[in-house]
Amino acid sequence: MRAAILAIGTELLGTDRLDTNSLRLTQSLETYGVPLVTKAVAGDDETQIAQTLDHLFTQADLLLVTGGLGPTADDVTRQAVARALRRDLCFDDDVATGIEAKFASFGMRMPQVNRRQAEVIDGATVLANPRGTAPGLRCDDERGTVFLFPGVPTELEGMIVADLEPWLAERSGGAGRERGMLKVASLPESTVEERIAPAYAELGRENVSVLAKAGEIRVQFWAAGAPAERRQRLAQMAARLRGLLGDAVFTDREDEDLAAVVGDLLRRRGESLASAESCTGGWLGRRITAVAGSSDYYPGGVVSYSNAVKEDFLGVPAALLAEHGAVSEPVAVAMAAGARERLGATYGIGITGVAGPGGGSEEKPVGTVHLALVGPPAAGARSEDAAGSALVEHRRVRFPGDRERVRWMSTQLALEMLRRHLLGVGSIAGEGNAEGRRSGAEAGVA
Amino acid sequence: MRAAILAIGTELLGTDRLDTNSLRLTQSLETYGVPLVTKAVAGDDETQIAQTLDHLFTQADLLLVTGGLGPTADDVTRQAVARALRRDLCFDDDVATGIEAKFASFGMRMPQVNRRQAEVIDGATVLANPRGTAPGLRCDDERGTVFLFPGVPTELEGMIVADLEPWLAERSGGAGRERGMLKVASLPESTVEERIAPAYAELGRENVSVLAKAGEIRVQFWAAGAPAERRQRLAQMAARLRGLLGDAVFTDREDEDLAAVVGDLLRRRGESLASAESCTGGWLGRRITAVAGSSDYYPGGVVSYSNAVKEDFLGVPAALLAEHGAVSEPVAVAMAAGARERLGATYGIGITGVAGPGGGSEEKPVGTVHLALVGPPAAGARSEDAAGSALVEHRRVRFPGDRERVRWMSTQLALEMLRRHLLGVGSIAGEGNAEGRRSGAEAGVA
Repeated sequence: MRAAILAIGTELLGTDRLDTNSLRLTQSLETYGVPLVTKAVAGDDETQIAQTLDHLFTQADLLLVTGGLGPTADDVTRQAVARALRRDLCFDDDVATGIEAKFASFGMRMPQVNRRQAEVIDGATVLANPRGTAPGLRCDDERGTVFLFPGVPTELEGMIVADLEPWLAERSGGAGRERGMLKVASLPESTVEERIAPAYAELGRENVSVLAKAGEIRVQFWAAGAPAERRQRLAQMAARLRGLLGDAVFTDREDEDLAAVVGDLLRRRGESLASAESCTGGWLGRRITAVAGSSDYYPGGVVSYSNAVKEDFLGVPAALLAEHGAVSEPVAVAMAAGARERLGATYGIGITGVAGPGGGSEEKPVGTVHLALVGPPAAGARSEDAAGSALVEHRRVRFPGDRERVRWMSTQLALEMLRRHLLGVGSIAGEGNAEGRRSGAEAGVA
Repeated sequence: MRAAILAIGTELLGTDRLDTNSLRLTQSLETYGVPLVTKAVAGDDETQIAQTLDHLFTQADLLLVTGGLGPTADDVTRQAVARALRRDLCFDDDVATGIEAKFASFGMRMPQVNRRQAEVIDGATVLANPRGTAPGLRCDDERGTVFLFPGVPTELEGMIVADLEPWLAERSGGAGRERGMLKVASLPESTVEERIAPAYAELGRENVSVLAKAGEIRVQFWAAGAPAERRQRLAQMAARLRGLLGDAVFTDREDEDLAAVVGDLLRRRGESLASAESCTGGWLGRRITAVAGSSDYYPGGVVSYSNAVKEDFLGVPAALLAEHGAVSEPVAVAMAAGARERLGATYGIGITGVAGPGGGSEEKPVGTVHLALVGPPAAGARSEDAAGSALVEHRRVRFPGDRERVRWMSTQLALEMLRRHLLGVGSIAGEGNAEGRRSGAEAGVA
């Protein structure tokens, strides 16, 4: 079986929207081991849709069609598919009754236009749509099978789970393909590639791929077979790749952000974090607080964009700013320590840098960022240092890219520095032309 | 002329990536009035690509093909297009010399594999690629014209500007279609629709469309004709729509964020803003500082996620927190005033709310947010109030949606409140089931 996806809707041919439904459908196809060979977008044009379906049947025998099932005159998918299959459309009383009941449940009468949604292609199986009015359809033809789904993502999701996946599972005898994932922060793609290279031969080169985003690498891997078998295989693959990547892996969940992982670690230890942000301007705080329940470990922070705020709110000495400049190791450390002590947190993070496009100099070019992580004072500290903090790590890095990328990478590296400290694992090699170095963890700094 | 777009690359058939190049190509087609009738994605398969091209020629006479021009064996676009056009590929010495020179300029010898990129379809026009090694091609066939572009966005962009657009301009005799845009913040789509409805008939219903995103509505409009003519028409349309929308329009530039507009207003007035964020956790600061040069008017802010930070850093009285709770009008106002006074800014914004999914109550359900904007004390204030602030506006709103949407909408409304104040225009109706109200602008609050 080979699949093709056709998304219908003139709005998908403009400059603003892409057919994102196809990504969800592709996931299901992958799970059941059906290769997707092509996808297409067509406008609300009956002839064009019918011709495109004829073409797609030359490439694939499973066609997944989304959109154009609404009640208005420009919704022509039903007609177009009927034409491509050389079948008639006929009014289905049961479907009409169902749509009427749906309107009635909202205390409304069904508008006349919605009667069109009760038209069914001869011989098609009707797929219930509990989340909307347009039913889906499945038509078996000598050239293959066509599924018609609504374009509304929530309605489509319901039918994928209720109709498409069970149908695919039956055809694959339960066998399929499933994806596993490991995410790594702030390491260059080449480093990740190098580390996992020894596993390529044993896991199958085609079953492992590396996807690089800014500051985040995803190692993806696939296993095929029946559900129990492929899950066991995925677990083995994950274990092997984790063995090679070590503590660089921060999660195996696609939807889990680094900030959530760090938050969990802090919560489990009963510890907390305060932030002092200059060039990132609140982005670190925004990421930390994107996680529900982050108030358990995040009292807050200071966006110290001006030097006056660095002095007044974080206690950064004016002399330090004058001598080293705002973008410097001593200032990053003093910001972190000020946030930690004044907000009463276990850890403090300070970020100060030149995000660009202006503000760079030969000594501190655009992209230069100083990050500091401080923690509780060392056990052996003298009593007069008790209110102080101990430097855990300072890094000076230079990120390539534009303002937003420099800022994003800074938040990512800050979180990764803390994650590694909380796990007690080593520091990381810097990204780009980083000149990072780890400072003595025991040095009192405030 | 009718156009079709074909993106080539097996990676575009996975679950992670969409063909975003097509959006950029569609813009150019729109500008020159060429309708896009379909788009498709094909894997790196010579036969499939050739068959898809044959099909697309039944739908369109201008085919824009991207991707698959690289040097490796899986880059088969050149071969596939040659096959569809029934032509040969031949090695082009000039192209090869150009690629060699490019490598030489980096002090490298051209790898043997890159010779493939010097293969040219018989009779094709070579399109220079100053940003990469793969040249583009233009082939004129009796069925129409095929452009082959690299899939790398920056390389594609260069060829669109240097080759595609001049070619389209010549064919359209300069006539084309251009888009104008007006952006409106924090008003419901229905309100925007209602206001511009009187202009539909005179501007042409099909020339105006309303696109709603969370907290932002885009009114788009199109004019056709020769460049000078359509630009004049666009200016007229913009003026008419601005007349109906009034000061609700914050920009006519697609890429300009509300935070940049507010920043410009502050800079022009020599004024500044400090932020006090609870539920948004730094997102407002992150948006303000996304604008280069924002240090001119943004000293910073406090992310006061915990009550202790609200007290210690912003001077919110503990009694106020105890009596009204952190999510309340008095606390939002005290946060704003604390930020304004302690950071020494002209204005202060305070945001405190229940972003969810937990933390809601009957009295303060999830989505409830209090926003306060304060400014300099009123002119008639007594001297002992001189350090205080005057409340400009307080709003209590309830945003529908998930945690991220509630937070985003909060930053958007905060910026819009300030923008309206800076322009001296009236307050806005709240979004969702907002219960916003404007408090007396003269009431001293700190």
